[in-house]
Amino acid sequence: MRKIKLIVAYDGTNYCGWQIQPNGITVQEVLNRALTDLLGTETRTVAASRTDSGVHARGNVAVFSTEARMPAERFTFALNTYLPPDIRIQGSEEVPESFHPRFTSTIKTYEYKILCRTIPDPLRRLDYLFCYDRLDVEAMRQALAYLVGEHDFKSFQGAGGEASTHTTVRTIYKAEILKEELEEDTGNQVQDPGGRQREAYTLRIRITGNGFLYNMVRIIAGTLLDIGRGHRPVSDMPQILAAKDRTQAGPTAPAHGLTLLEIRYPEWE
Amino acid sequence: MRKIKLIVAYDGTNYCGWQIQPNGITVQEVLNRALTDLLGTETRTVAASRTDSGVHARGNVAVFSTEARMPAERFTFALNTYLPPDIRIQGSEEVPESFHPRFTSTIKTYEYKILCRTIPDPLRRLDYLFCYDRLDVEAMRQALAYLVGEHDFKSFQGAGGEASTHTTVRTIYKAEILKEELEEDTGNQVQDPGGRQREAYTLRIRITGNGFLYNMVRIIAGTLLDIGRGHRPVSDMPQILAAKDRTQAGPTAPAHGLTLLEIRYPEWE
Repeated sequence: MRKIKLIVAYDGTNYCGWQIQPNGITVQEVLNRALTDLLGTETRTVAASRTDSGVHARGNVAVFSTEARMPAERFTFALNTYLPPDIRIQGSEEVPESFHPRFTSTIKTYEYKILCRTIPDPLRRLDYLFCYDRLDVEAMRQALAYLVGEHDFKSFQGAGGEASTHTTVRTIYKAEILKEELEEDTGNQVQDPGGRQREAYTLRIRITGNGFLYNMVRIIAGTLLDIGRGHRPVSDMPQILAAKDRTQAGPTAPAHGLTLLEIRYPEWE
Repeated sequence: MRKIKLIVAYDGTNYCGWQIQPNGITVQEVLNRALTDLLGTETRTVAASRTDSGVHARGNVAVFSTEARMPAERFTFALNTYLPPDIRIQGSEEVPESFHPRFTSTIKTYEYKILCRTIPDPLRRLDYLFCYDRLDVEAMRQALAYLVGEHDFKSFQGAGGEASTHTTVRTIYKAEILKEELEEDTGNQVQDPGGRQREAYTLRIRITGNGFLYNMVRIIAGTLLDIGRGHRPVSDMPQILAAKDRTQAGPTAPAHGLTLLEIRYPEWE
């Protein structure tokens, strides 16, 4: 038996998340079926991240075992012919039998995207959170900076999801907010009801860490939005962290703004 | 009766184009229904551009007449509450009775988007043409430059569509190809089957002119792709233009890569 690692990208809009479940179609179910069809034998995948309903991925990681002799890198193109267009394998390679996508230390990068504009954009509705309010991006950046490093992120752990691990300590290696102005809006008279021209832009909250608690990135995004809107001060962020209490942080931002960008396995690189 | 001008954005994926037709749901049909529901009386729109099935818009223009007293700029927000999320009014204003969105001279800007990558990206599948082949972007730019100015674009006129106008002469004011590298791909091991790392990028062919023949931008895009792939030389472009013969140009590129960005009415500005 060989173990094959897949890099999986998907638009999560039409899926009830990664993990197979009785109430709706999931990415894992569709991928397992494609693999089973391709290989002619029942094949199952295990993923690094069991993303929630509506969350997207550019680089989730899934592994499966097979006796097929197909060269490992061929699985990318072969599987894509069996998958719907909202799921696309981005790469495939053989890994040692001991490799497990979840029980191996990882460096994950998530991105939460926000469209700041007077009016929603139909072409960005699936993977951006629409935000009408003006945001103080500098305040959001200052607040986010408090989270870099090793901390107990208990305040940013959502209820439910997987069984909680023994520790809520995680390390964030890098966290940034990328702002991009939308030049295409200049001609389209996007203005607020008072008639003033408003700057339109996207924000991408990008966070890299050694692990994330359930809903952690979405709760961080929700807290940063509270701060960006001026509903609470930047100085709340260290207090939220210190409180180790979910009720101190902001709301969980909607799933569709979140994309799992990349998972790295430093031990295997 | 007042005349109201709307700026209409839509994701064309789920529509059979703009114009009402018996075989499927169209943007116009949904917009007319929203207006009728909002105003409580049968209301119909006339659009500047009757975009084809699958084509998107950021700034199509539609007008309607109404006796409602609502302030013109309020229609934007009011209508959006009646519309599905893949259609969003971007602005509304009152225009003189004599204003007609099609029989008034316009400056239109279209954009054709291409994703150049080894593997399709699920999050760009709806509004980018996926292109596996390496493209000579500089050759495409040189070829596109031949089209700027006043020319007879008969070679770039598709069969079908609306009744042909008396002339196929149009003026292109500006034409450019914007290239953007995709930094998020760096970690995702996107490589071609030979294992070489490949540059991933998007191209946006953006063309501004005083009018466009049926399928003109898509035929230009299809011709540029032929040239970018090296299937024909840059020097073919002036010959295609001179031939005034549709069979000399390249194929019509798929609809989903095309977005109508903006329509300006210089007489009314």
